[in-house]
Amino acid sequence: MNLTGVFAPIPTPFDRDNRVDTARLRAALARWVTTPLTGFVVLGSNGEAVLLDDDESDLVIAAAREAVPNGRPLIAGAGRESTHAAVGAAKRAADLGADAVLVRTPGFFKPQMTSDAFVRHYTAVADASPVPVFLYNFTALTGVNLLPAAVSQLAAHPNIAGMKESGGDVAQIADLVSGTPDDFSVLAGSASTFYAALCVGAAGGILALGCVVPEACTRLYQLTKAGRHDQARALQQQLVPLAKLLGSAYGVPGLKAALNLVGCDVGVPRPPLTSVPDAALVALREALGHFEEVALMGQA
Amino acid sequence: MNLTGVFAPIPTPFDRDNRVDTARLRAALARWVTTPLTGFVVLGSNGEAVLLDDDESDLVIAAAREAVPNGRPLIAGAGRESTHAAVGAAKRAADLGADAVLVRTPGFFKPQMTSDAFVRHYTAVADASPVPVFLYNFTALTGVNLLPAAVSQLAAHPNIAGMKESGGDVAQIADLVSGTPDDFSVLAGSASTFYAALCVGAAGGILALGCVVPEACTRLYQLTKAGRHDQARALQQQLVPLAKLLGSAYGVPGLKAALNLVGCDVGVPRPPLTSVPDAALVALREALGHFEEVALMGQA
Amino acid sequence: MNLTGVFAPIPTPFDRDNRVDTARLRAALARWVTTPLTGFVVLGSNGEAVLLDDDESDLVIAAAREAVPNGRPLIAGAGRESTHAAVGAAKRAADLGADAVLVRTPGFFKPQMTSDAFVRHYTAVADASPVPVFLYNFTALTGVNLLPAAVSQLAAHPNIAGMKESGGDVAQIADLVSGTPDDFSVLAGSASTFYAALCVGAAGGILALGCVVPEACTRLYQLTKAGRHDQARALQQQLVPLAKLLGSAYGVPGLKAALNLVGCDVGVPRPPLTSVPDAALVALREALGHFEEVALMGQA
Amino acid sequence: MNLTGVFAPIPTPFDRDNRVDTARLRAALARWVTTPLTGFVVLGSNGEAVLLDDDESDLVIAAAREAVPNGRPLIAGAGRESTHAAVGAAKRAADLGADAVLVRTPGFFKPQMTSDAFVRHYTAVADASPVPVFLYNFTALTGVNLLPAAVSQLAAHPNIAGMKESGGDVAQIADLVSGTPDDFSVLAGSASTFYAALCVGAAGGILALGCVVPEACTRLYQLTKAGRHDQARALQQQLVPLAKLLGSAYGVPGLKAALNLVGCDVGVPRPPLTSVPDAALVALREALGHFEEVALMGQA
Repeated sequence: MNLTGVFAPIPTPFDRDNRVDTARLRAALARWVTTPLTGFVVLGSNGEAVLLDDDESDLVIAAAREAVPNGRPLIAGAGRESTHAAVGAAKRAADLGADAVLVRTPGFFKPQMTSDAFVRHYTAVADASPVPVFLYNFTALTGVNLLPAAVSQLAAHPNIAGMKESGGDVAQIADLVSGTPDDFSVLAGSASTFYAALCVGAAGGILALGCVVPEACTRLYQLTKAGRHDQARALQQQLVPLAKLLGSAYGVPGLKAALNLVGCDVGVPRPPLTSVPDAALVALREALGHFEEVALMGQA
Repeated sequence: MNLTGVFAPIPTPFDRDNRVDTARLRAALARWVTTPLTGFVVLGSNGEAVLLDDDESDLVIAAAREAVPNGRPLIAGAGRESTHAAVGAAKRAADLGADAVLVRTPGFFKPQMTSDAFVRHYTAVADASPVPVFLYNFTALTGVNLLPAAVSQLAAHPNIAGMKESGGDVAQIADLVSGTPDDFSVLAGSASTFYAALCVGAAGGILALGCVVPEACTRLYQLTKAGRHDQARALQQQLVPLAKLLGSAYGVPGLKAALNLVGCDVGVPRPPLTSVPDAALVALREALGHFEEVALMGQA
Repeated sequence: MNLTGVFAPIPTPFDRDNRVDTARLRAALARWVTTPLTGFVVLGSNGEAVLLDDDESDLVIAAAREAVPNGRPLIAGAGRESTHAAVGAAKRAADLGADAVLVRTPGFFKPQMTSDAFVRHYTAVADASPVPVFLYNFTALTGVNLLPAAVSQLAAHPNIAGMKESGGDVAQIADLVSGTPDDFSVLAGSASTFYAALCVGAAGGILALGCVVPEACTRLYQLTKAGRHDQARALQQQLVPLAKLLGSAYGVPGLKAALNLVGCDVGVPRPPLTSVPDAALVALREALGHFEEVALMGQA
Repeated sequence: MNLTGVFAPIPTPFDRDNRVDTARLRAALARWVTTPLTGFVVLGSNGEAVLLDDDESDLVIAAAREAVPNGRPLIAGAGRESTHAAVGAAKRAADLGADAVLVRTPGFFKPQMTSDAFVRHYTAVADASPVPVFLYNFTALTGVNLLPAAVSQLAAHPNIAGMKESGGDVAQIADLVSGTPDDFSVLAGSASTFYAALCVGAAGGILALGCVVPEACTRLYQLTKAGRHDQARALQQQLVPLAKLLGSAYGVPGLKAALNLVGCDVGVPRPPLTSVPDAALVALREALGHFEEVALMGQA
């Protein structure tokens, strides 16, 4: 399984009755599989995973596997607060055809979430999962930090294949790379620092931005790997405004709005999330207009 | 329904196979109903609610209702990240006999969790819930803050009865009290500042400490309401060391260990939580030894 | 020396040429000495101490001593980043007639500012100071926290008389009170939590609000000490809006604007501080209008 | 004036009586001027500037100018909390021969330190300073953040030549570079992210690490500029452990201890700072041992 390059964390479409809409999910993926993206992640943060129940999660994975041909990596989110539930989610994801699972750190009981607790949790999941496990650290949303020393220890597990680090702390990404074997795949989650993360050794990224401008994100990866740093840096600068809109500014609602603007119908987010305000649409249209690969549609 | 005084947030016992142990839950509640506690909360943070699935949650509520006589308030946690799931949890809790539901703020998508989002979320839950709703703010664990202005707005909803504020920011508690009607019940969640919260107008508390020393907590409430401030302050000082051990120091594992030490068998927490280290047992025994109402048992 | 009740932290007036204006300082103090305030603090945070050089600081203390009769406590700020400079400032303040010095924690080298460092720093200052020393913790501005354990240790020093704790963490104030002897004077700095701080045992407060509504602040102190808690709580609620404007909302510029509005001419703050915006004046006039003791003047 | 490459922020030696020791300062600089470092900064954070009074500061600049030949950039710290004092410090520094001044953001009155306040402050200093001004942002110590939008505005001032950004947020450094003209020199202050900062366009760095291993730091700069990224990344990894010891772990005391270990006698820090514990010496010796350019001496 190729664990380098750019993966897209796919949003979950809902229909008018707020139910998971697998038809629109398959339609969107049919489009994305024609892009140079390495693979796809469903049920990540951008997939609104925490807003879905287990049955809905299973629907999403099954639909995605139909749309993503074998051989093209499909990674499914399987993070849960309880170790037992995370194990169950990983097993179900594997049964439904996921090639790997992405397991977000539990984070509710913050003071108890020590490195030891994380090592126990991930070891239990990796021991039980039929498919490889990716660690997943997203401190800005979880309030806990999976530190490089714990990752270094976990990377020795034969069923832990890599990690998504969503933070923009490039020093921490560098530490993750230098503290793990070469075949441990550190994937960046922050598009604004993707180029810098690649410079310090990240194997690729799982980028919401990759849903919207997959060719530009992939080109940034390729330019960096080819040592064409001036071009890479210029492309990174071009990507930053859009990355910020999809990241800290508008999050998942911003991603869904951007996709709707480029003709990829993924609907609206689930409450308590809501659609972005009109000002966001204006900013998104402006930012998207700089990319040749996108064809702007009518109103989002 | 009496919404003043001290409520205990009941831990959820698990058996040796890590399953919800309703027999031990009923046995523990049979003991607590003999204390002067006003009522009980199941499936709060101390109930490890985020580590239980929906079926297990239903088991807990049903078992608690069997053990808590009608007329004695039983509040069930019904917080979920999605509005739809919170509505469903509130309905099920009501069907199973809960007198009210305690709905923690969603907190995963932090930047989107504005006051508007909270108002929409809680309004939808309160519109649909067959029983009164308590708001629940626990910033230290969720990373979001339900501000007094939003609470003031929500307090006008006829089906929102009160709030649990778990933070120790007494100015915020004072603002919650002054910004809501007199019959809106602001309950404090931080035992270390319980006396101060009562001084500024809190109607009572939902205190893990209340599981362990229910008489002392109730006495602190009564002394304050009776205007016997010197005694109240002295009792608060006496409670602080134990409150810290059950709070910031050891959390839910600390609560379970303390209860086991006083002969209330609630077992061990669910992974990724683990039992407290031996040093915690020593500190807990020491702190518990100052309270006449507890009879220390052998090793926890 | 009476170390209970309400102290006012006096702002430093500047003239049109941005020089310390001792005439206006004396005039303002002449007014304040007629109020029931216990005493006065010059060169605190509200005195813009960090914007004055040593010569200017000396001018302020000397002028204040002229205006404040002997027997009425005058406390001078003597905080410096270096221990040596703090010692020098304390000695000069004593020479100029200050009854005590208020020594803010050094805070620039944050990771090195451990409890040990604070104990060494304050011990050196207290050893050398001819007048009693007050510790001064203001975490929101300094980014460091002088913890109760260190204060407990320092309170044993014969020349350390008390502490100003500017934070609103009432649990910490309670810990400071319970960890120090009865004659160690814990003074609160946050007006929004003054009543709660008094409840948990604070000896009084050093309150910017006390410059503007000295009678109301003093009455809040007296009501609480007299056990008239309902009236005290109501008065605290009345004070909160104004306290917030002088605190987190507008700080020193807000204090100067409020004083100008009530006819106490203290001029404008020193750059990089600037006068408050017009919206602040509107809010201040509205908040001040609820207090009988103030007579609103024309525009600030 | 060359504003690219690596600058060293020189520590300030004190003698046994805690006085500024200009002889040792000149001796140390005599050694550093033989290295490939671009230039030198005195009275930065690592120069313990906040622990010196104005007379001592003048001594340091004068002594440094004697030791640093004209043509080799000498930058002097001139940050003060008040605008007026910062202007005075900049003028004195210029009179004493500094080629530029490095002006740290004021940070005491945090809520008032808006972008507008920073723009006013720096504009006033730059208008008055006889030599070019460098902005200086060190959020971890000051608690305030000089944002790229304000820097972009200030970069238009003809007397503002560049900026030191001490934070490790590489996205912010990228924004600073993309928001300022090509001849505006963004210098990184975090050695752990120096390579990444150079990748995103930093012109160089002001690195405590540069005092200890000037050749390695300069080589990292040159390798990156030459496009030899694999070697640069490997060298960065080699530098990280030492960078952490001099940064977050031990700060200024760590820098002084490291220099003493390599035979550059800079004495001990000024109280409230103290010498590092023995464990730090062990760690520093171990980390230093990996660099050929250093010759370890006896005990620090």
